[in-house]
Formats: sequence, structure tokens, C-alpha cells
Amino acid sequence: MALLVEKTTSGREYKVKDMSQADFGRLEIELAEVEMPGLMSCRSEFGPSQPLKGARITGSLHMTIQTAVLIETLTALGAEVRWCSCNIFSTQDHAAAAIARDSAAVFAWKGETLQEYWWCTERALDWGPGGGPDLIVDDGGDATLLIHEGVKAEEIYEKDGTLPDPNSTDNAEFQIVLTIIRDGLKTDPKKYHKMKRLFGVSEETTTGVKRLYQMQANGTLLFPAINVNDSVTKSKFDNLYGCRHSLPDGLMRATDIMIAGKVAVIAGYGDVGKGCAAAMKQAGARVIVTEIDPICALQALMEGLQVLTLEDVVSEADIFVTTTGNKDIIMVDHMRKMKNNAIVCNIGHFDNEIDMLGLETYPGVKRITIKPQTDRWVFPETNSGIIVLAEGRLMNLGCATGHPSFVMSCSFTNQLIAQLELWKERETGKYEKKVYVLPKHLDEKVAALHLGKLGAKLTKLSKDQADYISVPIEGPYKPAHYRY
Amino acid sequence: MALLVEKTTSGREYKVKDMSQADFGRLEIELAEVEMPGLMSCRSEFGPSQPLKGARITGSLHMTIQTAVLIETLTALGAEVRWCSCNIFSTQDHAAAAIARDSAAVFAWKGETLQEYWWCTERALDWGPGGGPDLIVDDGGDATLLIHEGVKAEEIYEKDGTLPDPNSTDNAEFQIVLTIIRDGLKTDPKKYHKMKRLFGVSEETTTGVKRLYQMQANGTLLFPAINVNDSVTKSKFDNLYGCRHSLPDGLMRATDIMIAGKVAVIAGYGDVGKGCAAAMKQAGARVIVTEIDPICALQALMEGLQVLTLEDVVSEADIFVTTTGNKDIIMVDHMRKMKNNAIVCNIGHFDNEIDMLGLETYPGVKRITIKPQTDRWVFPETNSGIIVLAEGRLMNLGCATGHPSFVMSCSFTNQLIAQLELWKERETGKYEKKVYVLPKHLDEKVAALHLGKLGAKLTKLSKDQADYISVPIEGPYKPAHYRY
Amino acid sequence: MALLVEKTTSGREYKVKDMSQADFGRLEIELAEVEMPGLMSCRSEFGPSQPLKGARITGSLHMTIQTAVLIETLTALGAEVRWCSCNIFSTQDHAAAAIARDSAAVFAWKGETLQEYWWCTERALDWGPGGGPDLIVDDGGDATLLIHEGVKAEEIYEKDGTLPDPNSTDNAEFQIVLTIIRDGLKTDPKKYHKMKRLFGVSEETTTGVKRLYQMQANGTLLFPAINVNDSVTKSKFDNLYGCRHSLPDGLMRATDIMIAGKVAVIAGYGDVGKGCAAAMKQAGARVIVTEIDPICALQALMEGLQVLTLEDVVSEADIFVTTTGNKDIIMVDHMRKMKNNAIVCNIGHFDNEIDMLGLETYPGVKRITIKPQTDRWVFPETNSGIIVLAEGRLMNLGCATGHPSFVMSCSFTNQLIAQLELWKERETGKYEKKVYVLPKHLDEKVAALHLGKLGAKLTKLSKDQADYISVPIEGPYKPAHYRY
Amino acid sequence: MALLVEKTTSGREYKVKDMSQADFGRLEIELAEVEMPGLMSCRSEFGPSQPLKGARITGSLHMTIQTAVLIETLTALGAEVRWCSCNIFSTQDHAAAAIARDSAAVFAWKGETLQEYWWCTERALDWGPGGGPDLIVDDGGDATLLIHEGVKAEEIYEKDGTLPDPNSTDNAEFQIVLTIIRDGLKTDPKKYHKMKRLFGVSEETTTGVKRLYQMQANGTLLFPAINVNDSVTKSKFDNLYGCRHSLPDGLMRATDIMIAGKVAVIAGYGDVGKGCAAAMKQAGARVIVTEIDPICALQALMEGLQVLTLEDVVSEADIFVTTTGNKDIIMVDHMRKMKNNAIVCNIGHFDNEIDMLGLETYPGVKRITIKPQTDRWVFPETNSGIIVLAEGRLMNLGCATGHPSFVMSCSFTNQLIAQLELWKERETGKYEKKVYVLPKHLDEKVAALHLGKLGAKLTKLSKDQADYISVPIEGPYKPAHYRY
Repeated sequence: MALLVEKTTSGREYKVKDMSQADFGRLEIELAEVEMPGLMSCRSEFGPSQPLKGARITGSLHMTIQTAVLIETLTALGAEVRWCSCNIFSTQDHAAAAIARDSAAVFAWKGETLQEYWWCTERALDWGPGGGPDLIVDDGGDATLLIHEGVKAEEIYEKDGTLPDPNSTDNAEFQIVLTIIRDGLKTDPKKYHKMKRLFGVSEETTTGVKRLYQMQANGTLLFPAINVNDSVTKSKFDNLYGCRHSLPDGLMRATDIMIAGKVAVIAGYGDVGKGCAAAMKQAGARVIVTEIDPICALQALMEGLQVLTLEDVVSEADIFVTTTGNKDIIMVDHMRKMKNNAIVCNIGHFDNEIDMLGLETYPGVKRITIKPQTDRWVFPETNSGIIVLAEGRLMNLGCATGHPSFVMSCSFTNQLIAQLELWKERETGKYEKKVYVLPKHLDEKVAALHLGKLGAKLTKLSKDQADYISVPIEGPYKPAHYRY
Repeated sequence: MALLVEKTTSGREYKVKDMSQADFGRLEIELAEVEMPGLMSCRSEFGPSQPLKGARITGSLHMTIQTAVLIETLTALGAEVRWCSCNIFSTQDHAAAAIARDSAAVFAWKGETLQEYWWCTERALDWGPGGGPDLIVDDGGDATLLIHEGVKAEEIYEKDGTLPDPNSTDNAEFQIVLTIIRDGLKTDPKKYHKMKRLFGVSEETTTGVKRLYQMQANGTLLFPAINVNDSVTKSKFDNLYGCRHSLPDGLMRATDIMIAGKVAVIAGYGDVGKGCAAAMKQAGARVIVTEIDPICALQALMEGLQVLTLEDVVSEADIFVTTTGNKDIIMVDHMRKMKNNAIVCNIGHFDNEIDMLGLETYPGVKRITIKPQTDRWVFPETNSGIIVLAEGRLMNLGCATGHPSFVMSCSFTNQLIAQLELWKERETGKYEKKVYVLPKHLDEKVAALHLGKLGAKLTKLSKDQADYISVPIEGPYKPAHYRY
Repeated sequence: MALLVEKTTSGREYKVKDMSQADFGRLEIELAEVEMPGLMSCRSEFGPSQPLKGARITGSLHMTIQTAVLIETLTALGAEVRWCSCNIFSTQDHAAAAIARDSAAVFAWKGETLQEYWWCTERALDWGPGGGPDLIVDDGGDATLLIHEGVKAEEIYEKDGTLPDPNSTDNAEFQIVLTIIRDGLKTDPKKYHKMKRLFGVSEETTTGVKRLYQMQANGTLLFPAINVNDSVTKSKFDNLYGCRHSLPDGLMRATDIMIAGKVAVIAGYGDVGKGCAAAMKQAGARVIVTEIDPICALQALMEGLQVLTLEDVVSEADIFVTTTGNKDIIMVDHMRKMKNNAIVCNIGHFDNEIDMLGLETYPGVKRITIKPQTDRWVFPETNSGIIVLAEGRLMNLGCATGHPSFVMSCSFTNQLIAQLELWKERETGKYEKKVYVLPKHLDEKVAALHLGKLGAKLTKLSKDQADYISVPIEGPYKPAHYRY
Repeated sequence: MALLVEKTTSGREYKVKDMSQADFGRLEIELAEVEMPGLMSCRSEFGPSQPLKGARITGSLHMTIQTAVLIETLTALGAEVRWCSCNIFSTQDHAAAAIARDSAAVFAWKGETLQEYWWCTERALDWGPGGGPDLIVDDGGDATLLIHEGVKAEEIYEKDGTLPDPNSTDNAEFQIVLTIIRDGLKTDPKKYHKMKRLFGVSEETTTGVKRLYQMQANGTLLFPAINVNDSVTKSKFDNLYGCRHSLPDGLMRATDIMIAGKVAVIAGYGDVGKGCAAAMKQAGARVIVTEIDPICALQALMEGLQVLTLEDVVSEADIFVTTTGNKDIIMVDHMRKMKNNAIVCNIGHFDNEIDMLGLETYPGVKRITIKPQTDRWVFPETNSGIIVLAEGRLMNLGCATGHPSFVMSCSFTNQLIAQLELWKERETGKYEKKVYVLPKHLDEKVAALHLGKLGAKLTKLSKDQADYISVPIEGPYKPAHYRY
């Protein structure tokens, strides 16, 4: 693999698919700005004071049109930015081109190999000899992971010269991570140590947040982290309403299948699963949920959904969607029993919910690529096929364009606020090497920034009413444990 | 007021409307048992060991058929029980009769005056000379309030002989509370002090819980409290799905109005408001939400609801429902501007959301009682009327029969588990004078007990999967802050 | 049976349950008037010209509050009216009382025996020696049936003196009809011949209309008939939206069951079935439809409903609703296999959809009346029970108050317009002894009369646009075969 | 314009965009076959007997993947086929390539000019010297129109040598039609006379059907026509459920806009409008309907939708969709008042619902093409833009891929059955020069062919039940006027 970094005339580095798409990207970015009132009003509010002046920010987050608006909000507030995508299929190439040309160093294209993916991640973290970024915007935690694994390897290497051994794992992707770190060690045995002085990461997704809490529990977290995922205006909006929008979008673009009348199995009934199940039900499908958690299962039942196990329904359903954040949900043995042309896809962050390895290595299986990210896999015994979307990865980003701008404006305004906070408090010691959630008044502010666009008017509490329910007139209005 | 306590042949005290309805009550209790799998399986699981043996429990909670099943579960587990309702209109007289005859001391009937209401509360707390109850099951906190106010008054009285002065407040209901305490002081100046040694209260409702947290914050809480309301299987079920069921039920029984095509205003979009709005939308109404909280407002918008202020829509809407837990939501000045025969009702716990005092004292206003709990109020200027349900009190209990058995089984299983816990730990010091929430594994257990009845099957985690997401195979499955 | 006709002080005949409920009835009638803009605007439009002056109208139609507004619209337009209910459980006694006291001769009460029912029908048709009514308002066709059977019997009797033999049928209800006719023949052998000169009937319901078309096909129809059921503003509104409202209403009043989470089987997916299925789905049930017609079945599938046979699901469902207009839908053999406390009810016009005879005569079966119209039937083998509503008759009228006023205003405005038309054309020969449907412009007018109440504004066609789609600017806008 | 017909190696004519897409087209056709059980089971049932042997069929119908399955069903039954699209944007080029290579003469590509469009239509009708097709499959009626206009012109020309004058109309498209006919007249003055001997047309769409009924009324219809649109399994499925699927699909592909929270205006509430409104409501938009017909307006209200005029809401809504089949619905004057980036689109057959001419000629207006079929138009006064999809033409076909296969299988099975019928009866005189609807038992058959794929099971009538409701056991089950 010999990937070359390119440079704009102004000298900014990048590697994208096709720079000629920058104009098209710019037009769609302009459309998106109108749909992202949270970010745009932050530009108005904070732009003049340049609060991110001097901050070097690395982002590892789907390089889409919406992310482009986030990046240009960061730069509008003074930051310098380097970016990679956090999924091999999620980049929108015209968005990447526009940003690379106009605003930030971008290393991302749709359809990266895993090698290319981690090369991009490394490039985004590479701020030259001075060390790494000041701040990270993360989604899924891969940038954070690379630094943590790098630091760990450097420590071992320093102790006794042992290099990481890619063959020590049979996880193909982790082999790549170890290779990158090993190769880096030879050049600069302190590379990741120089990075770890960073001021913090803000993390976007359930899966990435889970990793952070584990590191906090183990005492291995190297810098402060803000859990943006658990802002109400993130997890109860992006996860729920975003997926409600983008699951059918992905299904329709990839397969044109009529959803009405079909049986859809949604594995998992968390926020993402709730959004997916709602979308399928509304489109006229009959929805069956699989769950491990009795509370979520009871919620599904209250909405008229059936709760069964995958085994109960595997041969009757038409559409299977994994949303669990767990692994080994749909195995090749399930897939063999499915109806001809059943659709199998994953909308969870990582691609281990569907047993792609089992499928690929199934004896005699035949893969027919209908179009990119839409494959029909035919089993030899039955000559019957299933359709797998986005190779088992995030189907809404692989097959469509991900969540729409408006809901991403909620998520990304949280990201922005988290970045502002981490930078502002970079030397105050306010944030230790722990995981934090944004305070409720900021969460409410994010929501408030999005009401006007939809024509909503809020009711104002009187002093008397505020006292009666013991809240400030201006909020926050709910206790921390409130569930919305 | 000369109310007389009556006695069954076995000597148990009671005061109900009509003992001849006991058979009818029994039949409906038997139906409800089939719909309340949580309580019934607790009877099977715990009945043999009689874990509540010796416990004297006072309940202040709507004396309905569902509550009857709770009471008889408490007695089946060994407790002795005295009961009153927590709302003047919420008693189902046949339920009260059946329980009074067969199981517990009941003081409750539909249509109590406020004096009668507090007399009933006093009776339910009156366990004779030995003092009060060991445990309280509370809904809205009136039993807890009476004890706290009583203790406060006794302390003042002990200090300097000052008696509480009912004229010190212009809240008509609180005047009655003070009168009762004052009169009690003359007989037994330590009556409430004898009660306060109790082992704890489990509280059911948002409003009551708020009072408890305030007392905890002020340091005035006299005994441990378990906040049952914030169990997921309570607030996200009873409040949401219960109201989704019982709001249209109450509207239809009270007014027979066609909901389809109408404009319904839901004040507040918390769990109760969400249930109400969903019910109205599903029935074909156009729904407008009023909110103070931008996050809840944005949730309403994502469901296609309009968010405006009451002033914007007061003259165009057909149905107004308050769900806020706050006061002064719909004032007489709003009511004057409403369309002829607009329906005004409250489904929040307390009756101060609608300005009934302003309405009653409006010059020249005329009240026409269509039937009990359904009044038409005609304004003199316009000769136009509005229809007020349940005199501004809990309309689903005043005009219909409250939430259905199945969802109350979730709530009451939480109550039961809380009572078991408080009694079991009564001498261990585990619970201080604070407010507690039940641990998540019990919350999940409550849900699990309700799945079989609905034909659901849970998926089991493998060891490998459980490790991957860092949860025990048997749960609990979610972090404390998870919002469902 | 010795039923006595009573008389008001003004000499009008009646037989109702309780005249003291007249005031209550009047209050609810006044509420209903506000919800019935179609009828009320007909009072304004036609009242002054008294177009029904001299018309003697007999109605056989559920004697509810809504019907009361229809009756008083007929009298406001000049008619003289006699009325009975068309179902033994559907009368609202306060409505009957108010009408009997104030407006028309009423023979109806809730809970008639079948003998009483047909006695009432006879009374409503009895306009004294001069013969029968000029016009009939029918629902289900019982008034029309009695006249047709009467005439047939009189012809046979005239020919050879044969009297009808009640034992010639094993249908219990038809035995009563024959008995009435036989007894009438002895008194007046031309009684029904005198009636048949009437100017027409307007019929309300799918079932009644089917009878009329059969008589038309057989050439036995004795007078013109207007099929009001197939006005769009009747069958696509009352049948669909009416049932969507009144099915859950009836279920909730009768059983308080939580609908969410339950499995509901709807037999039949015509307009009534569509309304019922929508109601159950919206309330959170999982809905299974049974159908004979592949088109309706495919419609159900497109809405995400499952289509199976009753046999497939009889032991798993919680709620069974028949809407077919056919007979023998749920047999006692099905009922034996149901879950304990499964609810069985019928919302079709006639009570032969559920095998009540089979149930009543099942060896060892036990009937436990929870309350009127709610019976638990326990099978001896299993000691398991099912709950039958309204004895298998129209559950929404037996257990609740039927359809709400607004949608009945659509239906009844069609009835009123049909009556006006039949009376106006009584001597022109416009209507032969056939079944007619109202012209589309009247159908559209009925709809138009109901828009203002709901705040709707119509768009006006320009001349140019009207020409382009070849319709008059003022409508009608659709071809006759348009399905809406 | 010098378009050249190309030929396959086997000598079949075609003109498509890119023959190299044929393999891709074939793969998607194979997927679609699995979703089109109606057509595929007709292949099994009728294929062996080759009932269309000898028939020359011209189709003018969106050249999509689904249409490809129809074409190959026609050829599988023995027909010879020539095809063009009926909309300049609706061709899927890979479908056209696959059919051109494998099965039929195709003249169609995405993005034709109007000249090219009519050239294609001419080619599809051109069966060589022997005259035109035997049968036409039409959608919108353009093929039928061309023949009728051609015959009319030829008659005039024969009489006095007058040629059609393109300048006699200011409709740009009709100018092209006249030009084509004029040019044809010079070559062959009997060209269209030779065509008119055809055995019939089956027409697909509301708009085309309306034209046919007008010609029938004027006595100008030249051959029999079967109105496929008014089969229940067409208009109540394709129009309703097809649009419910493809409207959001088109919106999402074209603009990625979040639908939840937005205000959507649906102009027209016929079957198409009902599908569109349902889709927008389900996706979380607030829906406002405009209507001229009070019955449809009342239906919208019963679903909780608001009914207003376009003027009332033009400046507040976010999405505008025309579904009326009428013209001049959204004028440039409306567009000027819209919010910035409001989306304007049409899902009706013809492109005159939106005033594109007014927009294009608005002084100073600027068109910015975001991507094909997505244009932003900026008004000079406000610098505010609106987004017009598919240049005002059918947005679901222009911006997405039209209706999904399953629902098109219903529509196309009707088309197929109509073609079979017209061909079978070509010499029996059964069909006169009139418009016919398929008999109900065929409509029911179409539905029945689609049930198995969705796992449905029908209930069978007993003989006794069939007699009771007077229908044959095997159907048809409903009277002709039944509305479903």
C-alpha cells in the first residue's frame, strides 16, 4: 500500500476520492446549513470571539455533508482541523472534496480498505513533529483506541524492546492496528506518548462511550472524555429519530423493496432499535423484536410489536436489522435458513453483529454484487440467496447518506459544546481523566436552538410556577435521572 | 360532619358507600387478577414464606379494583392493612366494598367531600393506641404529609402550646389538614410522634416524589422513602401507556365526544403528556402541545405535533388536557375564550392545574351538571359553555376507572417489592431518612414478570456476548443513567 | 307479556324505562346538537318551509342521544314521528325519556326481551286505523321485514285461511315475528296491506341494504328504498371512523382491559373491520385479521396486519371481534379453545356472528354475569372462561353508547335528506319499487356541512381548472365509481 | 435532432443510454421477479399456451425494472414488444439496456428532451410498413393521443390538404406532437389510419383514463380501452401504497431532508394524496391538506390532518407535494412567498401542476442545479430559494426509482390480464370502442396471487355462509359499487 498525501495550493494535506466533486459538495453543504440551526447559531454566537483559536482538532467521524458543517463550524470558531471517517463506507466523496479544498485536512473516501482506513486515521492524528491533536472528536472511539494502544505498546517497548505482534490476534482489523503501531515504533518510539497530553475527547456513540467507561473503570483512560452520546439531545434524537429516517432510506436505495406487508425483525429495542421498529411499522411492515432486556421487551409489546427470538422467526421474515451494539447476532447458520432474498443489514456502529466471516467462508457460497454495498449471497444447498447490505457495516451510511442534517445538528451541537468546554478548561483541571456528561442546561440549550426552525413556541413559567415545582424559570427543568 | 366507622362481623373497621356491591367487586377483582401477572406471581413466590407477617401497612391510594389486588397481595404475604383513597373521586365503590368485607380496613367512597377525605386518611393511619402504621403505601403523599405536618405541629405545641391555625392559610384543603391536626392535638399531643417511628413509605407518583425530594433536601424527612415512581416499569409504563389508555376512556365515558377531527391541546409533554398526546393523535385528533422544556418540546415536534402556547390556540381547540404537575395552567380567563363546549380536564395528580376557584367565582357563571363529574359551565357574556370533567381533578379516575389492570400490575409490583424491602431491612439500618430508587435488577424483574402473559420470548445472552458488552448474563443490562 | 302503552299529558303514546331521566336526556341532547352540524344546519335551512309537514314517519333505529337529534330534526321539519330501537340493548333510556316527553312516540328501553322488542316495533308502525306510516327510517330492516312478512302472510291467509305457523322455523326470533303476524291477522287481516302503500324507506346499514337488494332481485320489494348506507358519507365514515371510536369504548367500559400488548383478532376487513383494526392497532394491540376476500386481505397486509384463519390463532389471541355481516364466525368450538378470559364480541348488526346458542347449550357451561352485558362463561373441562360482551349483539351499543355524535351527524343527515326526497317525490313516480342511492352532489353536501365545525377550509376550483378536469366548479367532483 | 436507431446482433431495434448496463439491469430484474408474484405466476399459468402468440404490443410506460418484468412476461406469453417511456425522467437506464439486449425493442433513456421523448414514442409505435401495433399498454395516454391526433390530422389533410400547424398552440409539448404528425404526413398520409385498426389499449393511470372517458363521451375513441386504473388492485394499491413508499424515497434521495418536524402540504387527497399524506405523517411531519372535494376533505380531517388552502400556509410549510391531476396548483406567486429552501414537487402524472413556466420566466430568477433533478431556484428580491424536484415532473420516478416491485406487480398483473382479454376477444366484437373495467373476479384474482408471498391465509366460506350473504363460495365477494 503506497498511499500518498496530496496538498492543496495553500499547502493543506488531504487524500480524497475526487477533488472535482468539491463544487457539488459545497452546494449540498449550503443546503445542509439551512437545516442545521444549532451549529449555525453557534457560529453567530461564538464566531466573533474565536474561542477555539489555537486548538488543533482531530476528528474521526463519518465524513458526510453534515460533518462538513460541523468541521466548518469548528474552523469558524478558530480551530485547525484534520479529519478522517470512522467507517470505510460512510464518506460522502463530494463532502470530503469540498472540505479538503476549502477548510480542513481530510483523509477519507467511500470504500476504503481496512488498511486504508487506519492509514487515514493515522494521518488525521498526525500534526507533525510537535505531537498530536489538542482535542479529538470521536465516533466509535477508533482515534482514541489507536492512541491508547500506541501508548501501551510504547511502554512495553521502552521496558524491554518488545514490538507488538500482529499475529497475536486473529481479529483481522486489530492486526492492522498492531502493524501500524509496530511500524510507527521504529520511526518514533514516543509518537503516541507525545499525543496523550491532549486535553480531551468528545465521543458520539453508544459503542464508543462503552469503551470509555471501561477504560475509566480499569484506570487506563489517558485524558478526559465527554460522553456526548448520553446528552438527551443526542441519544434520544439522533439514535431514535435519525435511524427512523435513515433505515428505510438505506433499504430503499439499496434494494427498492416494498416495506409494506413485509415481516421485519429488529434485533434490539434500545434507542436505535426503537427508531428502526417505528420506521418499519409506519411503512406498513409487521415488526418482530428480539431483546435480552425485559424492560425494553415490554416497551416493544406496549407498541403492539411481537417479541420473539431470532430462531422463532428466522425462516419467515423478509428484513433483518441488527441494532444491538453486541456481537454474533445473526450467524451464518441463521442466514442459511432465511427465505430467498431476505435482506440482512446492520445499523449498529460495528460490523460484528452479522457474522460476515462465517458467511464469506461458508463452503460453496456465491457472492453476486448487485451494486456497491448490495450483495446477494447464494447458498449452494438451496440455491437460495440473501441480500446483505454494506457488507454488514452501518447500512444507513453505506447504502444511503446517514442521518439527515436536522437531527445531526442536535448531535453535533453537543459535540461543538463539548469541544468548547474541553478547550476552555484545558488548564483549569476541571476535567480529570474521567468520562463526563454535559450539564442539563446545555442539553436544553441544544434543543432550544432547534425549535425556531420548526415554528415552535415555548411556554414561559411564571415565578410562582417555577417556585411551585422548584426549578429556575430559565431551567434546567428536570432532575438528572429524568428519562424523557 | 359525623362520620361513623362501621365494623364487619369479624370486627374489622370500614366506611364504604354500599356493602352490597361487594360481590360485584369480587367478580371484577377476579378478572383483574388474570391481568396482573406481576402481583399474582409475587403471591406464588412469596406467599408461603409470609414475609410481611406482622407488618401494619397503611395505604393512601386510589381505592380501585387494581388496588384491591395489591391490597390482597399484601395480606396474602402476611400484612395487616388499612386503606383510604388519595382522591375524592377515584374510589370504585364495589372494589372498596369487596375489600372491606373480605380483606382490609377501608375508608373510601366515590365523591367524598374534602373533610370526608381527610377523615378517611386519618382513619387509615389510626392503628389504635399503639401508634401508626409500620409502613405506608402512598400516592401523591397525603398520608406522608399528614404525619409530617402533625409532627411539626406537635413540636411547636410542645414548645409553647401554640395550636395550628387553620386561618393561617387561604388554601381550603390545607385549612382542613390543620383543623384535623389541631383537633388531634387536644386528644393526644403525641399522636404523630408515635407514628413517625415507621419504617418507611413507598411513593407512587411524580408529584408525591417531588415532595419527598424537597423534604430530603430540607432535612425534614422523618423516615426512609422508596421512590417507586422512577422505576422504569412505573414511570415509563403507568404514566405513559396508562394515560394513553385512560385519557380517551375518560373523555368517552364523560362526554361521548368524537375525538377524530378535533383539536386537542395537551399541556405538558412529560411521560403523562406523551401518553395523552399519543392517544389523541391515534384517535384522529390534531394535537397541539404546550411545553416549557425545550427538550420535551423538540420530542413533540419529532412526532409531528405542533408546539405552541395556550394563548395561541385557546379559542380554536376542542379538548384541553393538563398533565404538567404544575399549577395555574388553564385559568378562567383562558376558559372564557374557548369555543362553546370545549372540554377542559386534568390528568395530573393535583387539582390546581385548572383554575377551578376562578371558574366557580366568576361573576354570573352558571354550572349545569350533565351527570356526576361532567359539568357544563356557562359564561354570562357569551352564553357559551365549557365542559369541565371531574371538577378539575384526575379525570381518568373521576370519569372512568383509571389505568387498566395490566399496567397497574407493573406499578404495584414495584410498590410491593418496595414494601418487602422496607420491612425486611427495618432493623438493619440499610435505609436512612432519604429517598431511594429500587435497584435496576428489581425493575427488570418487574418487567420480566409481565412478559409471559403477552406471549413474549426473551433472547438469552451467551457468556461471550455478555462479556463483550460487560453485563452479567442475567442482567441488569443497562447503566443507571439509561433512559429507555 | 302484558305491556301497556302509556301516554304523556299531551296524549302522545310511549313506553320507556324511566320518564324521570328525561331532563338528563335533554341535557345530553343539547350537547349532541353542538356536535351534529349536519342535522342542525338542515333545521336552519329547511325548518321554515316545513317540508315534512303531514308526513308520518316510523323509525326503527337505536334510540340513542344521537337519534334523538335526528328525531327532533324530523319533527322540526314538520313530521310526526313514532320510534322503536333496532336492537334490544342499544336504547339509551334517558334519550328515550326525553324524546317521549317532548317530541315523539317512543317504544324502547335498554334490555328488552325479544318479545318486547317486536312489540315495540309493532307499536312504532301502529299509526291507528288509518294504516301505517308514510315513511320508514330503518336500520337493519326489521320494520321493513315485519311489513313484508305481514303482507305475505295476509296474502296466504286471504287465499286459503292458512295462518303463519311459528313452529315452522327453529329460529327463535322469527317464531316471534310469525306469532305477532298471526295474532294480528285475527284482529285485522289487512293490517299490513294498509301499510304497504307507504312512500318509501331509507335504510342505514350494510345488512339491511343487503336484504333490500335481495328483495329487489326477487321482485318482492313493496315500496321504494333509499340505500343510505352506501352514501360515502355514511359507509366510509360511520362504519369506519364510528367503529374506530366505539370499539375501544365498548371494550373499556365493559372490561377495563388494557388493549396495549394484547393480540386482537378482527374477523372481516370491510369498512367496519378496517375501523376496528385501526383502533386496536393504535391502542397498541397486535392485530390479526381473518378475511375471505383477497382484496381486503391484501389491504390488511399493506397496513402491517397479519392475515390468518381463526383456527390458526384461536388459542393465542386475547380479543376477538366479529365484523363480517355473515353468520357462524365464532363457534362454541372455537370458544372452548380460547385463553382464559379471552374477550369475544360482535360489532356487526346481527347477533348470529357468534354462536351464542352453541355456547348457551354447551353441556356444563356456567354463566357468571359480571355486570349487565358483560358475562363470563366458564367451560367445565378446563374451568377456564371467556368473556362475552352484550350477549353477542352489537357491543358498541350494548356496552357503550355507540358511535359518537359527529359521525352520526353524517349518517343521519343522509337519512334526513333521503326522507325529504321520498316525501317530496311521493306522488311523482320518480321512485319505483327499487333500491336507490343518493346522488353524489347530496353526498358532497353532507360532507360540506361538517367541515366548518372542524375548522377546515376548502379550495375553490377556477373555471379553467374545472374545465380541465371536466367537472362543474360546484361539484360533484368524482365519477360514480370513485372509491374514496 | 438526428437520433439513430441502433440494432442488436439479432437485428432488434433500440435506442438506450448505455448498453453496458445490461448486466446490472438483469441482476435487478431478477431481484424484482421475486417481488412480483402476480406476473411470475401468470408466466407459469399462461406461458405454456402462448396466448399472446402473434400479438404486436407497443408500450408507453415508465421503462423501469418493474416494467422490464412486465415486458418479459408479455414476451414469455408469446408477444412481440416495442417500448418507450411515458416520462422524460422515468427510465432506469440499466433496465432499458437489459430489455433492449434480451427481450424487446426499447427507445428510452433518463433525461430525454421533449423532442426525443416523442421521437421515442413514434419509434415504439412504428412496426414497419404493415402499420402499427395490435395492442397498446399505455400510461398517461400519450401513445393513444398520438394516434388520435394523427388520425384527426390525416382526415383534415385528406379533405383539403391542410397540414397541422405547430404554431396554432402555445403549449410547447403539443407543438412537438403537431410537428411530428406534420412531418409524418408528408411521408405517409395514412400512417395513423393504418394504426387505428388496433384491438385496444389498456390504460394505467387516473389521468390517462380521464382522457379516454372524455373521448368516449365525445364519440372520438378509435378503439376499445380497458381502464386498468380503476381496478381496485391498481388504484387502491399502486396509487395509495406505492406513493406512500415512493414519496419519502424521492424526497430523501433528492434532498436528504429530515421529514420529522416539518410541515408538509399535500395538494389533493385522492388515492395518491392519501398515500402521500400518510407517508409524511408517519415520518413525523405535520400534514396540511388542500382539497376541493368536501368528502375527501372530511376524510383528511378524520385522520387528524388539517385542511386549509394553499394561500393559508404557503409561507409556513417546508414541503409541498401536488397530487391533484389538475393544473395550476402551485404558481410562481406561491413559490415567491415560500420559506427559504422549501421543497416543491409533483407526484401527479403530468407536469402542469406546478407552474414551471412561470418560475423559469420569472425576472431575475436564478437556477442552481444541485444535482440532476434537484434544482434550487433563487428569487432576486429575497435572495431566498426554493428547491424544485424533477423539474416539476413525477418526482418519485425522477428522483427515485418509482413504486416498488410488489405493488407494481398488482398493477401490471392487471395490465397483463387486460392485454390477454383484448387479444383473446380481438375478433369477437365483445369490446366496442368504449372504456371497460376488468370484472371483479379478475380483480380478486390479482389480489389472491399476491397473498402467498406475504404469508397470508384466507378464510373459506362454507356453502351455508355463502348462501347467507348471497355470494359464490369462490367469489366475487362484493357488489360493483363497493368502495374498499
